[in-house]
Amino acid sequence: MSDTQWILTAQCPSRLGTIDAVTGLLYQNQLYITELHSFDDCNSQRFFIRANFRSDDRFDDKTFRNEFLERANRFEMQWELRPTNYRPKVVIMVSKFDHCLNDLLYQHKIGALNIEIPAIISNHPDLEDLARWYNIPYHRLPITADTKAQQEAQVWQIIQDSNAELVVLARYMQVLSSDMCQKLEGWAINIHHSLLPGFKGAKPYHQAWEKGVKTVGATAHYINDDLDEGPIITQEIEPVDHSYYPEDLIAKGRDIERMTLTRAVRYHVEQRVFLNGNRTVVFAD
Amino acid sequence: MSDTQWILTAQCPSRLGTIDAVTGLLYQNQLYITELHSFDDCNSQRFFIRANFRSDDRFDDKTFRNEFLERANRFEMQWELRPTNYRPKVVIMVSKFDHCLNDLLYQHKIGALNIEIPAIISNHPDLEDLARWYNIPYHRLPITADTKAQQEAQVWQIIQDSNAELVVLARYMQVLSSDMCQKLEGWAINIHHSLLPGFKGAKPYHQAWEKGVKTVGATAHYINDDLDEGPIITQEIEPVDHSYYPEDLIAKGRDIERMTLTRAVRYHVEQRVFLNGNRTVVFAD
Amino acid sequence: MSDTQWILTAQCPSRLGTIDAVTGLLYQNQLYITELHSFDDCNSQRFFIRANFRSDDRFDDKTFRNEFLERANRFEMQWELRPTNYRPKVVIMVSKFDHCLNDLLYQHKIGALNIEIPAIISNHPDLEDLARWYNIPYHRLPITADTKAQQEAQVWQIIQDSNAELVVLARYMQVLSSDMCQKLEGWAINIHHSLLPGFKGAKPYHQAWEKGVKTVGATAHYINDDLDEGPIITQEIEPVDHSYYPEDLIAKGRDIERMTLTRAVRYHVEQRVFLNGNRTVVFAD
Amino acid sequence: MSDTQWILTAQCPSRLGTIDAVTGLLYQNQLYITELHSFDDCNSQRFFIRANFRSDDRFDDKTFRNEFLERANRFEMQWELRPTNYRPKVVIMVSKFDHCLNDLLYQHKIGALNIEIPAIISNHPDLEDLARWYNIPYHRLPITADTKAQQEAQVWQIIQDSNAELVVLARYMQVLSSDMCQKLEGWAINIHHSLLPGFKGAKPYHQAWEKGVKTVGATAHYINDDLDEGPIITQEIEPVDHSYYPEDLIAKGRDIERMTLTRAVRYHVEQRVFLNGNRTVVFAD
Repeated sequence: MSDTQWILTAQCPSRLGTIDAVTGLLYQNQLYITELHSFDDCNSQRFFIRANFRSDDRFDDKTFRNEFLERANRFEMQWELRPTNYRPKVVIMVSKFDHCLNDLLYQHKIGALNIEIPAIISNHPDLEDLARWYNIPYHRLPITADTKAQQEAQVWQIIQDSNAELVVLARYMQVLSSDMCQKLEGWAINIHHSLLPGFKGAKPYHQAWEKGVKTVGATAHYINDDLDEGPIITQEIEPVDHSYYPEDLIAKGRDIERMTLTRAVRYHVEQRVFLNGNRTVVFAD
Repeated sequence: MSDTQWILTAQCPSRLGTIDAVTGLLYQNQLYITELHSFDDCNSQRFFIRANFRSDDRFDDKTFRNEFLERANRFEMQWELRPTNYRPKVVIMVSKFDHCLNDLLYQHKIGALNIEIPAIISNHPDLEDLARWYNIPYHRLPITADTKAQQEAQVWQIIQDSNAELVVLARYMQVLSSDMCQKLEGWAINIHHSLLPGFKGAKPYHQAWEKGVKTVGATAHYINDDLDEGPIITQEIEPVDHSYYPEDLIAKGRDIERMTLTRAVRYHVEQRVFLNGNRTVVFAD
Repeated sequence: MSDTQWILTAQCPSRLGTIDAVTGLLYQNQLYITELHSFDDCNSQRFFIRANFRSDDRFDDKTFRNEFLERANRFEMQWELRPTNYRPKVVIMVSKFDHCLNDLLYQHKIGALNIEIPAIISNHPDLEDLARWYNIPYHRLPITADTKAQQEAQVWQIIQDSNAELVVLARYMQVLSSDMCQKLEGWAINIHHSLLPGFKGAKPYHQAWEKGVKTVGATAHYINDDLDEGPIITQEIEPVDHSYYPEDLIAKGRDIERMTLTRAVRYHVEQRVFLNGNRTVVFAD
Repeated sequence: MSDTQWILTAQCPSRLGTIDAVTGLLYQNQLYITELHSFDDCNSQRFFIRANFRSDDRFDDKTFRNEFLERANRFEMQWELRPTNYRPKVVIMVSKFDHCLNDLLYQHKIGALNIEIPAIISNHPDLEDLARWYNIPYHRLPITADTKAQQEAQVWQIIQDSNAELVVLARYMQVLSSDMCQKLEGWAINIHHSLLPGFKGAKPYHQAWEKGVKTVGATAHYINDDLDEGPIITQEIEPVDHSYYPEDLIAKGRDIERMTLTRAVRYHVEQRVFLNGNRTVVFAD
């Protein structure tokens, strides 16, 4: 008889009545809204909404979905309705660095990241012990220039077999093929160890050190076809000074990277993130 | 023919249909919502909403107000409707320190704080030149233990004569009488130079130094009858270290105080702040 | 033939010649200083210095220590000389919360915390698996009101047997006896989940929520006899808003606590922290 | 009889004995060091030192300078000795934006920036009133493509006539000629409204908005011949989100820019900044 919490998200072209289309139907169905955020981008002319609401056991979400679908179509809405206890399946890809993976697995274990992790994929064996301790299947798929296409096919198979709804590149260190990028566009999150668009490409901390910057940062972004150019979800920074050599920036960066990536994954999973062209709308907490 | 931007804010006891009461009427009146935030405090059982919308010249806000009043009453709503170009009258009270006043006047001058300042009140003559340069009337009302009641009566007269909607204590340095506090409760903002509730009372930077803290902060809060205990609007901090003597904390604090106070005033003026018992709801930007 | 890196730290009453006593001897011994920080607290009238230097294989640290001892005595210096690869033994005490322990063990594993961990002590069995995965001996010592003295005796025995140079209370959740506090004074670090001296005692996040604060923080401090009043090493904060219920503050606090505690332990281990009465001098990086 | 405070700074190639050369002589002269920072850049192989010390009235700085000169020459040191109450002459260049100038003048007035301002130079008349209120001579030197060389000659004349030791470009908005950049290299500070090297060139906030960044920042740096590429002194950032249009980034940026520039000028004036190739060493407070 207990209440269920739901999140309804939608986006569509900016038009009069979009909010009312959502809130009106919720009201008609006696559904109590606990938090609501909407934003209308006057530049891209698109509307974004996220509503938390609760239902009691008389609520039939199938009926509601049908009712909402009719409205959504009228406004050309892309939308999603999920109970807050829904745990999307997330495949994590790593290489040898463990700081991001370690944090994702820990947050998952204590329930701070409400996800299932059906698979961890790596081109190296190094992090298998860690995966095993958290009881997550670990797929070692080595990669060379010659086997790249074949390896990516295996990766893709695992992603599909596990019904993944999100792929997280937790310092995977491999450049995905254009084909793979297109397949994952909008539902794979990468962590880049600089404040993009600054210091794209390889060795960003070394680049940053060369320039004598006084801050370092990390960027979590969706993958698209343009390397390190996908829509940004979150960015975090820390001050540094002259006494940081590149290896010190790398060490400091570990904390920034894991915090940034974990936060971005949480925002995505809590349906706080909307794609808006090459930018994002994030109703952060 | 040009559009007008409006902000509608409301709060009331938590009940089904509160959001729809707002968004439904806006839709019926063909009013376009550009941004909407709502929050339902499941602890205090109160609901808060802030909607930005725009109207064209067919909009008659008197009619709308009447229509909304009927709904508002049904939900026991406290509410307010204002065009975004509305400039509330703000009386500023100061003593000798000029850093907060200087920032408020500057932000006001460049239009970043959308307010009118009908009067500056001080118990000292020091800041009259600054006020004059910004063309703001300056009232010098000296105060002694003996003349406190009389001085506060004069202060109150000025506040009333100027139709002030907000009073800002920009380092006024005088303890207001209980009577004055009650009169100003909920519409006077004070800046306290510590992270409240830490270091209440006098010389907070000296207190902080004694404790060897590694951060200092400032708190902007509404006045109520309990000194330094009113609802907090904003708090900001900066790291410090062992090399900061009390005078260095004071110097560093100047920037923190002015930023914090100016931000709180802006949030209040932009109708982002709601009283929620002894706490606040702030739909920040 | 490779160089060794050393850290020399000292503190003493403020007197002319204290720096020269250090730098002069280093120079005479042909030791190259790579980084030097000194601070003279004009209030406590004490002097603090930390020098990084490198030696080649002709360096005999015993001879150097004898030479330095003579100077140190003249200035009433407390001092310490250690190679940077020295790994002090650190005993960690925990209860049921794993976020701080997890981070300490991870940072230890990847070499970011240059320590040995001879023992983890807990009054609960919950974190034994975690300890085991990192191959650290785990001592479960349950505690009740009746067995407190006896349990603390066991704790003390383990600390002594393991030759611990530092004890870290990583959310141990038990109030140590006055006797135990005295034994550990100055070489045990506690994490308190608030910005001390604000919200001392139990349930600080609930206290913070009651007050409607807009920031939450954590404080790592040395233990002394006065609960939550020992010298502060580091403090960190994060902004929060009205939408955070106490459980959200607790969740957010987990990241702040582990970052703050790990940083404080690292600073201590890297000999960056000096006691200065009830305050500290920290030559941070 | 009162004490005088001094700051001695030096840099030179990394060699054994550099610190001792400074501290030893201070000791021989019975000069009390209150704070000392040194750093040895193992990459550029250069050494940097900054010492605060105090003298009584028996101190003859001319004699000391002669003694130090001999040592300095031996180590190829660039060095400077100044009493802390020395107020260098700073010429400020502005265009129409007043936020940076307003802050510099205010901090100067209250003594937080220990400088003299012999001249403000602008290509527009807009900020003359502000300059006048602070009693600073204001030189209006309009500039067109045709008169650029001539205008820069006038600017240079004013800089020379006023014996300026530092030039501050407080949003001057004009690209200096290569010749002027060379003249000012290393002793002119510019504020750029982005986190360099990101978003060089024109309209950085618009560039940032296009990329959908989640942080904006400002960079204070020395001028050199490569536009927006000079050595960075300080960088500060603030988080932003999707609701910030370019004009909101500009508004938020005003506070970041003025804080960053004022801090950089203060660091320079307090002799905390050392050029280190295309990077800087900053002994910050």
